[in-house]
Amino acid sequence: MERITATYYIETPFDPEKAAQVLAGEQSSGTFVAVPGETAALKERFAARVESVQKIETVQQPAIPGAISKDGQYHRAIVKVSWSIENFGYNLPVLVSTLQGNLYEITQFTGLKLMDIDLPASYADHFRGPAFGIDGCRKLTNVLDRPLIGTIIKPSVGLSPEETASMVNTLAEAGIDFVKDDELMSSTANSNFSDRLDAVMDVINRHADKTGKRVMYAFNISGEMDEMLRRYEMVVQKGGTCAMISINSVGLSAAKKIADQGQLAIHAHRNGWGMLNRHPLLGIDFKAYQKIWRLAGADQLHVNGIQNKFWESDDSVVASIEACLTALLQQAKPLPVVSSGQWGGQAFETWRSTKTVDLLYMAGGGIMAHPLGAAAGVKALQQAWKAAVEGLTLEQAAKAYHEFAMSVEKFGKGNA
Amino acid sequence: MERITATYYIETPFDPEKAAQVLAGEQSSGTFVAVPGETAALKERFAARVESVQKIETVQQPAIPGAISKDGQYHRAIVKVSWSIENFGYNLPVLVSTLQGNLYEITQFTGLKLMDIDLPASYADHFRGPAFGIDGCRKLTNVLDRPLIGTIIKPSVGLSPEETASMVNTLAEAGIDFVKDDELMSSTANSNFSDRLDAVMDVINRHADKTGKRVMYAFNISGEMDEMLRRYEMVVQKGGTCAMISINSVGLSAAKKIADQGQLAIHAHRNGWGMLNRHPLLGIDFKAYQKIWRLAGADQLHVNGIQNKFWESDDSVVASIEACLTALLQQAKPLPVVSSGQWGGQAFETWRSTKTVDLLYMAGGGIMAHPLGAAAGVKALQQAWKAAVEGLTLEQAAKAYHEFAMSVEKFGKGNA
Repeated sequence: MERITATYYIETPFDPEKAAQVLAGEQSSGTFVAVPGETAALKERFAARVESVQKIETVQQPAIPGAISKDGQYHRAIVKVSWSIENFGYNLPVLVSTLQGNLYEITQFTGLKLMDIDLPASYADHFRGPAFGIDGCRKLTNVLDRPLIGTIIKPSVGLSPEETASMVNTLAEAGIDFVKDDELMSSTANSNFSDRLDAVMDVINRHADKTGKRVMYAFNISGEMDEMLRRYEMVVQKGGTCAMISINSVGLSAAKKIADQGQLAIHAHRNGWGMLNRHPLLGIDFKAYQKIWRLAGADQLHVNGIQNKFWESDDSVVASIEACLTALLQQAKPLPVVSSGQWGGQAFETWRSTKTVDLLYMAGGGIMAHPLGAAAGVKALQQAWKAAVEGLTLEQAAKAYHEFAMSVEKFGKGNA
Repeated sequence: MERITATYYIETPFDPEKAAQVLAGEQSSGTFVAVPGETAALKERFAARVESVQKIETVQQPAIPGAISKDGQYHRAIVKVSWSIENFGYNLPVLVSTLQGNLYEITQFTGLKLMDIDLPASYADHFRGPAFGIDGCRKLTNVLDRPLIGTIIKPSVGLSPEETASMVNTLAEAGIDFVKDDELMSSTANSNFSDRLDAVMDVINRHADKTGKRVMYAFNISGEMDEMLRRYEMVVQKGGTCAMISINSVGLSAAKKIADQGQLAIHAHRNGWGMLNRHPLLGIDFKAYQKIWRLAGADQLHVNGIQNKFWESDDSVVASIEACLTALLQQAKPLPVVSSGQWGGQAFETWRSTKTVDLLYMAGGGIMAHPLGAAAGVKALQQAWKAAVEGLTLEQAAKAYHEFAMSVEKFGKGNA
């Protein structure tokens, strides 16, 4: 019978092998005393199994509160635990409850992070994964050989539908590929969702009729289930190509229901992610997280950006991009969304460390606040990526391209 | 205009006032440079506002990775930030993205936990809250003046529908009020959901016909949206009174859609909670968390238990019970679900520290592994609570009641 294997990074004051056994017990039999009915045959079939324990290091301070060590030592290890798929079948929420459920409560751990998940082959028959993925998003935007260039409407909250549409018009004329609502913006007092949809799609449809290029706009449909379905259908009706969901806020079952509709690319925004990941020994690593959301059907997944304004290291961002670009179950791959404090300047290091153009490269202020206006902002980003792929340095690119040079002046080190 | 105020526990190497301003900016205007269109009037209407900053202490080690302090000092403070409800209206996922979104990424913080949320009065008009709550659950089970006594079918995974039903039969005859599936158990290779439902409801319906008492069984319907709705309807059709959802795994929008059906009490299981809460300076406190889930319609909410087998302190458990029993928007209150390593012995301290019997008191092994069988296990729990409320000590109760005395012998300190 197929099994699913989860890899955890753990810390414990006990023998890591024994702590891992507690985890396996809690997540399959789940009680503190032997009970009638728990036969050896049942255990063999349904019990979680500790596959391996690899000790890493010992530290003197626990990472998070839990059992106190008698000898002052806390042991860190990489632990693999497996479950038969007979336990949960192809039910994603129950899979999550099994791999990420009550185990975080276990006092024997002073650190626990789900690092990766190995999915069995039969999952390919039950989960389509991204309906569009990288190739589908490229086709929808007609961008084939460079990163999609995108931006976020800013200020996040406050613009009227007409102001938003006017900004989209400027951006479309400047040749942008992708625009999105902010995750804080869904339907506000002065920007009702359907009014904004109408105003924005009017601009996008007119622009598409004129030029043949349809700007992809990610409308933030996040909300209650029925409202999301209504909004999704409205976007389809108006000729839109993308819907955005705040996946952590909306949750797995509703997000999958939306992705299952299959008519729009799903822009999966991971806001709230820091809560799940920021501590090195608590929560879930992006490598595991992105697999769950690929199963649910995310076409575009946020990965932060190189030299971002947030706390995340460049190494972590690069690992996240690589995770998205690694094959999973013959499914389409999701497009990594690079964002946060980005302007053309990071294209060079992003290219150097990932060697891919399969990215949705987002710049907010980096485009909208360009000294020569948004159109020049878009142009500067295209120039930066062209130069980076051709092997130019930032300095060489600034000499070659005027708009990019203006970006460097405004957003370069010490200037932003 | 009404505002929502969030209370955060923060740590920062910077002036807490300035760090709070960064949070407010990120969660309303949200870009790193001033952009055209961000007028003073817009800011006034839609900007988040720092309401107060109360410094607590200064420490020398950051709680989580973030900006490095130049003077080696990290300042902890309680910060209140407010938003106009014009920003998100009555959209729960967007509220969550605003209060719990990208702010966890902000590098200026080396600790950030959402502690509480103050909801405006108008939320009462848009969210019914728990359809049943404490009073409704009491009516459904006909338990009016003591805690509901419940148990979890163990082993969590592996029993056949017939074995499960046979256990329910024993428990029903013993006078149990509530039984639930484990969160790991939904539909397994040897216990298909609908077969288990049929077998269990057959027992419960027969017992109800005979005695007038209908045992509440929380069927774990967690799964994809449509499957949950189908299973919910099946439970209703069979005469069931409760559905269980793993709220963190299923997510907010789908869970609310289920709760909105209003025909079954919703047993909200918080597995995965440790990931969101275990670190003292990261994530969300139960006080804030339970408000979101009350808005979504949770009728029963897990709070762990006194002297539990997990990492959580008794003080934290008591605070969680109090949070559930505190009024919110004139809604029905959710029934706190006390569980984890419970047997009658904890009734005394639970009563002493909460002075309430508005609890669903769950014991797994504590009932099923009672030396005289499950029936005696239920009886011992009822005896313990009766004694606790009457002011007896554990020792006095053990002298007064035989079944409870046997529990003390098996599960009491050093015996379990």
